Order: sequence, then structure tokens, then C-alpha cells
Amino acid sequence: MMLEKISSNKMFGGVQEHFQHHAESLKCQMRFAIYLPEGASKHAPVPVLYWLSGLTCTDENFVQKSGGQRMASALGIAIVCPDTSPRGVGIADDENQSYDLGLGAGFYINATEKPWSTHYKMYDYIVNELPVLIAANFPVSNKKSISGHSMGGHGALTIALKNPDKYCSVSAFSPIANPINSPWGQKAFSAYLGSDKTLWQQHDASVLMKASTQHVPALVDQGLADDFLQEQLQPESLISAALSNNYPLILNQHQGYDHSYFFIASFIESHLCFHAKHLGQS
Amino acid sequence: MMLEKISSNKMFGGVQEHFQHHAESLKCQMRFAIYLPEGASKHAPVPVLYWLSGLTCTDENFVQKSGGQRMASALGIAIVCPDTSPRGVGIADDENQSYDLGLGAGFYINATEKPWSTHYKMYDYIVNELPVLIAANFPVSNKKSISGHSMGGHGALTIALKNPDKYCSVSAFSPIANPINSPWGQKAFSAYLGSDKTLWQQHDASVLMKASTQHVPALVDQGLADDFLQEQLQPESLISAALSNNYPLILNQHQGYDHSYFFIASFIESHLCFHAKHLGQS
Repeated sequence: MMLEKISSNKMFGGVQEHFQHHAESLKCQMRFAIYLPEGASKHAPVPVLYWLSGLTCTDENFVQKSGGQRMASALGIAIVCPDTSPRGVGIADDENQSYDLGLGAGFYINATEKPWSTHYKMYDYIVNELPVLIAANFPVSNKKSISGHSMGGHGALTIALKNPDKYCSVSAFSPIANPINSPWGQKAFSAYLGSDKTLWQQHDASVLMKASTQHVPALVDQGLADDFLQEQLQPESLISAALSNNYPLILNQHQGYDHSYFFIASFIESHLCFHAKHLGQS
Repeated sequence: MMLEKISSNKMFGGVQEHFQHHAESLKCQMRFAIYLPEGASKHAPVPVLYWLSGLTCTDENFVQKSGGQRMASALGIAIVCPDTSPRGVGIADDENQSYDLGLGAGFYINATEKPWSTHYKMYDYIVNELPVLIAANFPVSNKKSISGHSMGGHGALTIALKNPDKYCSVSAFSPIANPINSPWGQKAFSAYLGSDKTLWQQHDASVLMKASTQHVPALVDQGLADDFLQEQLQPESLISAALSNNYPLILNQHQGYDHSYFFIASFIESHLCFHAKHLGQS
């Protein structure tokens, strides 16, 4: 598979890069970002944290705003940031864009309904295609963890809960914790998966956590001044699921913090330290 | 003076805010950003670091990309980020924009030439008007330092060198160190100040440092993979000036780093610690 480098900038002793490539699962060109800490090499491969962004975001937001590279450098972890949906000429919804469906809103699932089912296979891209591409082209070990924000927090939790053997740990900022009961989730799942709600449940973090039999260590941080807290995010559903299943979930709530990257920047250090512990880097 | 709050986000225990106000010196509406660390109050006022941004930037760039709020919080320092030029309907060059003159390119000087001289008084705004506004509206002490990037590094150095009693310390990332000999500086100074080069010299960091009799502690960091290094930035002129005048300049050069905010993010901690020492915060 051909990788085209878009940019490369030295940062905290390592390098922050952006690439584009043809994604087989999505049938389009995709961009991703990767931060590689200093010293990462074939002889000293580093584990990878996958970061899934939220609605309207691209491969740029975390890179520009989180400040996460500082601790990734200190802890010896690579961070891969994919885009949030397929993009490009002819892809469904290119013209009739709403911020919470289609472009920038892939929800990290495989769409089964037309017109989405041709390209919107973000689950396959994140779980299967991208890690193979990363392993083949960068000095990384086979240890992976996953994190994300909002829609990406939903993505990280559901992907880790469905693939407990693939990820050493999972974390999320302000995740859509119970999408089958939130307007964002209902709109996306209706369009991408149709009306069969048993399909929806396979991509709901609270449903999955309640039924989980193999526990990936999980950390969630949620701001209490988040405008989307009650209607869209519903962390109480995740807490209930964890309690009912004795799931080792750490869920921290923070007075005064909102849904923005200012919140993520404030607590990304603790998430990276959490993942480092489970990735064997601390 | 009326301040209108545009946004407010909790970050690292403190608050990141943006305001707009009518600037008397510039005769237009201006925006600025301020980060206030946790605990700043009338009874516990904090010192202020002024951050001057580079060409094309606004009050947003440092706030979004530097990660500087983390150490500002830890050290108990406020950071004020003004915009880089006057803006608004009817201001010279609104229509015929080039990235290095006019909008986003105020160069932190007082223009004497038409059409710029009506609004382009960024020196007065930064040195006189804005600090009075900040002192009147926020819980800050009378201790100030100043820093900046590229055009803003030029601004920080020249303003501190011309006002050694006003600033406890000065620092710069990748400053335009000798603008009278750089294409960016020559274009701006010709337009704003006319052809009298004795006026230009009053806003050249290398000329000012060579003649300085009162030394503000100064720190400069420069990336050696900076595309603008030789033609526009010329740190060697500043080094020569410091050596010839026994000026206590610390100038660090860094292999592989470029002109971007990835460089600033990598070293902002050391700049904030430098200022904290001189502001009595460490």
C-alpha cells in the first residue's frame, strides 16, 4: 500500500507527520496523523495509541490542540489520529452536509444501508486496515490502546469492548456513552444501520459494557459544564452498566469543564499515563 | 472602557477567555485572549506575560496550539494574547491583502505614513493601552514580561529593549532579529515608516540590543530547520549585537525544528519558567 507523506514537523524530540493513502475498506483516499517519539526504531518499536476524534473533526484537531505529544514523547508512545469519515468526490452526503451525519460523522461503524454502505466502513478501517498499514510502515510494536473524544469516545469504547484481545486499554473524553438513547446516535444508526435495533446495540458502549465478559481497563473523563451532557452523552448509563457487571471502569467527573479541546488538553496527561501503564511503558 | 466577553473555557484549573473592545489607539474593535490561572484574585493578583503572534495570526493561535496554559497554571502567570493588527471595515488594506503587510502584519510599530497612520498604531496599543485595560479589568499585579513568535518575536524584543523599566524579562521564538536587513522588515517599515532609515532602526532588535544600556533578561529559541532562518530571521545579527554590548542574551539553536507552532509547543515550558523566575513566581 502506498503512503504519501503530506507533512513532517519535529516536536518534543520526535516527529509529527501526516500521510494520505488509498483505504481499501472505505474505497477512497484517507488522511491520518502519526506522532512518533524520539528513539522509535525497528530495533526499539513503540506501542501505539489510536485517537478517534469527534463530530466535524479531521486528523488535525488532536494534533493541533491536545498537547498530547509532550507526554507521548516522555512515555515512548506513538499516537495515530485517523480522520472521522470517508471523504472525497462522489461519496454520499458530500453535497447535502449536516454536521452529525455523513462527512466528519462516520461513527466508527460499518454502514449496511444505502447510500452509506459503499464507503462508510469506518469500523473495518480502524480495527483492521489502519493497524496493518501502521505496523507495515512505522516502527511500532504489536501493543495497542485506543482513546477518543465524544463520537470518538463512543468509537474507542465500543471498538475496545468488541475486541478485548486487540487493545491493552481504552479511554474516552466525554463519550456518547449510550448512543441508542441519544439523538446523535439515533440519527446516525438509523441512517447507517437501518431500523433493526439489535444492530444498534452492537455499537452501544453501555450495552456492550453490561454484557462484557473480558475486561479491557477503561478510563473516562467527563466535564460537568458540557452542553451535551444530559441529552447526548449520558455517562450515567455507562456507570450503571459498569456497576451491574463489576466492570473496572474509572469515570472522573470535573466541575466547570466543557466539551472542548481545552478540557482534553487539561487531562490528556492522565490518559496517556493510564495507557502507558497498560502498554508496559511505565 | 467596555469589554465584551466572547468565550470562556475552563482549562488546567484556570480559565481561557476571549474579549473584544474598542481600541482607542487603533480606532477599531480589537480582540484579545487572556488565560487566568486558578486562584488569581484581587487579593492574590498574578503577573502577566504578553504573547505577540506572528504574521497572519490572530488572538487564537497561541491559545489553540502552544499548550502554554499548562505551565502558566502551574507557575501562576496570566497570559495575554492580542491580535496582530487592527481589523475591520474601512481599515487600510482590508481589500488588497498580502500576508506580510496590513491585516495580520502590524509589526508592533506606530505607522507614520498614509494610509496606515490612522489605524496602525500597534506599538501604542501593546505598550500603553492594553496593559491599562488588563490592569483595570483582571486580577493582575504590576509585573509584566513579554514574548512572541517571528514578527511577534521582533515585537517582544524591540518593545522590551525600548521599555526596560516596564518588563521583567523578554523572550522570543524565531524572531525577525534584524528587520532592517530582511525582506519582511524592509517591506513593512517602508510602508509604515517611509524611507527614513533612522526611524527603522528604532524598531530593530539587533540595533537596539547593541545600544542598550539597561538590560532586560532575554531568551531566544531558534529552530535550525526553519525555512525563514537565513533570509528573514538572521539570529546571528542578534548574537553579534549581544556580544558587542555584553548583553545577557541566552540564544538556543535546535537541530531539526522548523518555524511552526510544533516548535513553540516543544519549548514553551522553558520560556514560561524563564519568565516565572524574573516575575518572582518560582
